[in-house]
Amino acid sequence: MNAAQEIQNREAFRHAVVNTLERRLFYIPSFKIYRGVAGLYDYGPPGCAVKSNVLAFWRQHFVLEESMLEVDCPCVTPEVVLKASGHVDKFTDLMVKDEKTGTCYRADHLLKDYCKDKLEKDPNLSAVKAAELSHVLAILDDLSSDELGAKIKGYGITAPDTKNSLSDPYPFNLMFQTSIGPSGVSPGYMRPETAQGIFVNFKDLYYYNGNKLPFAAAQIGQAFRNEISPRQGLLRVREFTLAEIEHFVDPDDKSHPKFSEVSTLEFFMFPREDQVSGRAARRIHIGEAVAAGIVNNETLGYFIGRVYLFLTQLGIDKDRLRFRQHLANEMAHYAADCWDAEIECSYGWIECVGIADRSAYDLRAHTDKSGVALVAHEKFAEPREVQKLVITPVKKELGLAFKGSQKMVVEALEAMEEKEAMELKATLEAKGEAEFRVCTLDKDVTIKSNMVLISKEKKKEHQRVFTPSVIEPSFGIGRIIYCLYEHSFYTRPGRDGGDEQLNVFGFPPIVAPIKCTVFPLVQNQQYEEVAKRIAKSLAAVGITYKIDITGTSIGKRYARTDELGVPLAITVDTATTVTIRERDSKQQIRINVDEVASVVKEFTDGVSTWGDVLWKYPTHSS
Amino acid sequence: MNAAQEIQNREAFRHAVVNTLERRLFYIPSFKIYRGVAGLYDYGPPGCAVKSNVLAFWRQHFVLEESMLEVDCPCVTPEVVLKASGHVDKFTDLMVKDEKTGTCYRADHLLKDYCKDKLEKDPNLSAVKAAELSHVLAILDDLSSDELGAKIKGYGITAPDTKNSLSDPYPFNLMFQTSIGPSGVSPGYMRPETAQGIFVNFKDLYYYNGNKLPFAAAQIGQAFRNEISPRQGLLRVREFTLAEIEHFVDPDDKSHPKFSEVSTLEFFMFPREDQVSGRAARRIHIGEAVAAGIVNNETLGYFIGRVYLFLTQLGIDKDRLRFRQHLANEMAHYAADCWDAEIECSYGWIECVGIADRSAYDLRAHTDKSGVALVAHEKFAEPREVQKLVITPVKKELGLAFKGSQKMVVEALEAMEEKEAMELKATLEAKGEAEFRVCTLDKDVTIKSNMVLISKEKKKEHQRVFTPSVIEPSFGIGRIIYCLYEHSFYTRPGRDGGDEQLNVFGFPPIVAPIKCTVFPLVQNQQYEEVAKRIAKSLAAVGITYKIDITGTSIGKRYARTDELGVPLAITVDTATTVTIRERDSKQQIRINVDEVASVVKEFTDGVSTWGDVLWKYPTHSS
Repeated sequence: MNAAQEIQNREAFRHAVVNTLERRLFYIPSFKIYRGVAGLYDYGPPGCAVKSNVLAFWRQHFVLEESMLEVDCPCVTPEVVLKASGHVDKFTDLMVKDEKTGTCYRADHLLKDYCKDKLEKDPNLSAVKAAELSHVLAILDDLSSDELGAKIKGYGITAPDTKNSLSDPYPFNLMFQTSIGPSGVSPGYMRPETAQGIFVNFKDLYYYNGNKLPFAAAQIGQAFRNEISPRQGLLRVREFTLAEIEHFVDPDDKSHPKFSEVSTLEFFMFPREDQVSGRAARRIHIGEAVAAGIVNNETLGYFIGRVYLFLTQLGIDKDRLRFRQHLANEMAHYAADCWDAEIECSYGWIECVGIADRSAYDLRAHTDKSGVALVAHEKFAEPREVQKLVITPVKKELGLAFKGSQKMVVEALEAMEEKEAMELKATLEAKGEAEFRVCTLDKDVTIKSNMVLISKEKKKEHQRVFTPSVIEPSFGIGRIIYCLYEHSFYTRPGRDGGDEQLNVFGFPPIVAPIKCTVFPLVQNQQYEEVAKRIAKSLAAVGITYKIDITGTSIGKRYARTDELGVPLAITVDTATTVTIRERDSKQQIRINVDEVASVVKEFTDGVSTWGDVLWKYPTHSS
Repeated sequence: MNAAQEIQNREAFRHAVVNTLERRLFYIPSFKIYRGVAGLYDYGPPGCAVKSNVLAFWRQHFVLEESMLEVDCPCVTPEVVLKASGHVDKFTDLMVKDEKTGTCYRADHLLKDYCKDKLEKDPNLSAVKAAELSHVLAILDDLSSDELGAKIKGYGITAPDTKNSLSDPYPFNLMFQTSIGPSGVSPGYMRPETAQGIFVNFKDLYYYNGNKLPFAAAQIGQAFRNEISPRQGLLRVREFTLAEIEHFVDPDDKSHPKFSEVSTLEFFMFPREDQVSGRAARRIHIGEAVAAGIVNNETLGYFIGRVYLFLTQLGIDKDRLRFRQHLANEMAHYAADCWDAEIECSYGWIECVGIADRSAYDLRAHTDKSGVALVAHEKFAEPREVQKLVITPVKKELGLAFKGSQKMVVEALEAMEEKEAMELKATLEAKGEAEFRVCTLDKDVTIKSNMVLISKEKKKEHQRVFTPSVIEPSFGIGRIIYCLYEHSFYTRPGRDGGDEQLNVFGFPPIVAPIKCTVFPLVQNQQYEEVAKRIAKSLAAVGITYKIDITGTSIGKRYARTDELGVPLAITVDTATTVTIRERDSKQQIRINVDEVASVVKEFTDGVSTWGDVLWKYPTHSS
């Protein structure tokens, strides 16, 4: 199959999936009756149930099993917080405007489309030109605003709709801005991630955890990005649900007590070096990846393993899942290491979970801006002796020498780092005086040896005070769900043997939006009453079900609910027993009405497999 | 106890509750390290768990047991939707500004504070004046902007902080405004309620439900109100979680098939007439209230009953819960009836759930604005014969008579309602001509009998097309949780017999943030391992627990977790058996380690009561 055919197949497959999803209301373009808003989608009833199930499993797998501290912070966030985090200044995309109509485009998208289009469709493209365009695609994310502008001008790229010329690129902040309170003087933003709500609460959470490290806090909630021009359907949207973990750890000890529980897992990893040297992703034991230093530390490795388990238990195909390490140019300067869980779908490899060691960056940024020390303490069993720098300005002499400027000179002397102070001390001892820069006065002053005492003293310390590192697994819930839809979808021939293909979502029971259906075989009052009694017993134990008492044929009713991914169908065909049919195998068993709720519950809770059920109740051929 | 004492007691009680809530991180003022933002709060770990539990129970009690269609729509909403719903024009509070500093205040709050203050603290107040101020308080919500301004001026009310004079009142829209996309030409708002997302999806949801009425859709999500000056702590906030139900029903048949399941419930109701005549709320059977016409219809009554069950099962005290009917002046003009579930707490009676019959208002508003018919169809078993008005303008004659204005005259004739048309017909038959108002021309014209044919014809109709009514129970989740905190809180003497009082949150197991604790009695490796094994078995069945292996005394560990409302404490004091202590009774039982998870699960799931547990395992005295 050539590349063009493959693209066509992928698009046909996507079309079939998306068509089923929209027709069965897994999702709905938001505000559809008003022609919608790009990048906003509703979860309809089955989609909403899938989302609830994914989040419930996330809570079980991470919050409960790892004893995390879950919090829930507002979306509305005052500017000062996002100024400290860097979002106000740096959370931007470069945008160009149609110079006549004012329509906005993402600058990198236009350049990318131009290059791809030329490469795919221009038969006269020279080898040199093709190599140049491929190079542009490779370095696209590294281009500065000026470089991007120059390329757009250089290639003569114009506005796609009007062919008008374009403005120079300029940064557009992706946060939705608003104003808090009636005065109009308190700018705020809708949070672009949930993490900041956790960071600003570090002090309280550390206290809640008994002032002990490591611990993790978690948050599930909405986040917002005012995309310039949303693309890729459900994958790039303006409002989405994030589930984020901030695991706080001693930077000197990033071991993890439960690492051995995941260390033997093997899955596709794509280390930085393999990417740079053009190799493919390969299966690696996570234990070996950590031992070999490919993954920076045990805690990061532990979370990669836990994310692998989470995604595959949800129903993500392990052969279309890889952990890709960020290249040096993708990673923030402060990050120690970063891996994305990428899932392959018809759009290509999609980043669904980011797992980053962000070092102490966030806590330091909020400490600096707020003045509240977001630090941890390690109490020593025995006090330790340390050498401490002591700087004592002699205020009387400094006052005589500098009069009104005395305060600034004193502060500058006290603010010296160890190296600078020891050099000053040496100069004063050698020459009796030294030139000294006072930034706040913007000039050098002459310091004499009687103006300041500098020494190193031995002190006893009872504890170590440090800023914890944070390891952050961040889950894009909507993206995971979309990939899950593609990985779960398949078709099979209809019953009548014709060309008809039936759609099936083969969701695992924990994900399935509805756990079972209840069908009276034929329309009759007795069966209907049995069906209602079963429905009530299912609701009582928390099982979602769909009851269908229409006279439609059983085959059609199966087909309808296979399309919703319902794993079990209960058909009432006697007053005392029913058949249960499993969606993927289409095998059936017969059991008593009174046993239905417990059998369904054990299967859908994952306590028993369909194999276990078959072992207990022999198959039944209808 | 006099009124002042009662207020003092209430405030002391509230202080004790809020102090415990903040100290144990049930909630945290958001962005505290930056001095916070009024009206924004975080749920800390136990608060977040309580919220999850309340929402899970809401889903079980409403969505699952009533087979509702749950949806999940974005918070960002384009202006057109909120223009149609009326929020852009009418979702306002009246505000006054300090004329020098620009500080904003809610006009009604200032007037209310002034009246209350005078009534409570001015010993020289005349009886006449007191009566006047009491009257102002009673009619406060009905005052227009001008009336409010006149009273503020008349009483000489100034800015509370500066004593500067105040501006006239003017409306301030309470929605957080933002802009969608980069162009700045698409205004949007953060939704003030979740309901609109459901209304705009009516057509799809009706189809999903097999084009059948009645059905209900539900949504849980964040909503936003940019309050002018938030007060009352957790009760009036700028961002909050709503859980809303929109039950769509045939306006001609508001019966409910399951009404008999709630009709014998009896609880405090406060009908409109009792409020007006100064009587107190009284216990009424909901069945009788519907039969007597106090509650407008069965469906409304059914939901009132279900809300009563929901709140009391959560732990709300039934004696501090009442359903208050809206007075005529509180209710929107289109509403058929409206009842608030009000819960009494230290702030007084707080509206926590609104249950309104909103008639066809919302669907009609969106039909008008979007042009998409949000209607239901009732197919008749047999076609029905109906009389239909037929108006046929004779275009030739009208063209001759009105030339360029013909089109407007034709449209005006066709738009006539039945009554107007039949009157015109009678006049034309009697006099041969008639004066006829054409609004679009802004004048009367003379219509002659040859210009229009008006008749009634018999037609066969196969279906009835109508706009459904909607009954909306809307839950303020944060308010319910706050009231639950107050209703669950109590103190008891400490173990040492001194003055120390221990705080307890007596949450029902389904609400409790942590279901049980695991304590090794003394610090030893064997007990610690047993504790960890128990913890693992609890996590596996989804039970939240807290393990405490510090050497703190058991009494202190009990006290710490009573304050978090943990219902069961497991103490490991042998290698094979443990004691389990129940929080409120302080009774203990002894069971085998292997039985722990199942006993705790049955109790916390509500399958067995503590009484059941005691019956099976005799109490143990420690």
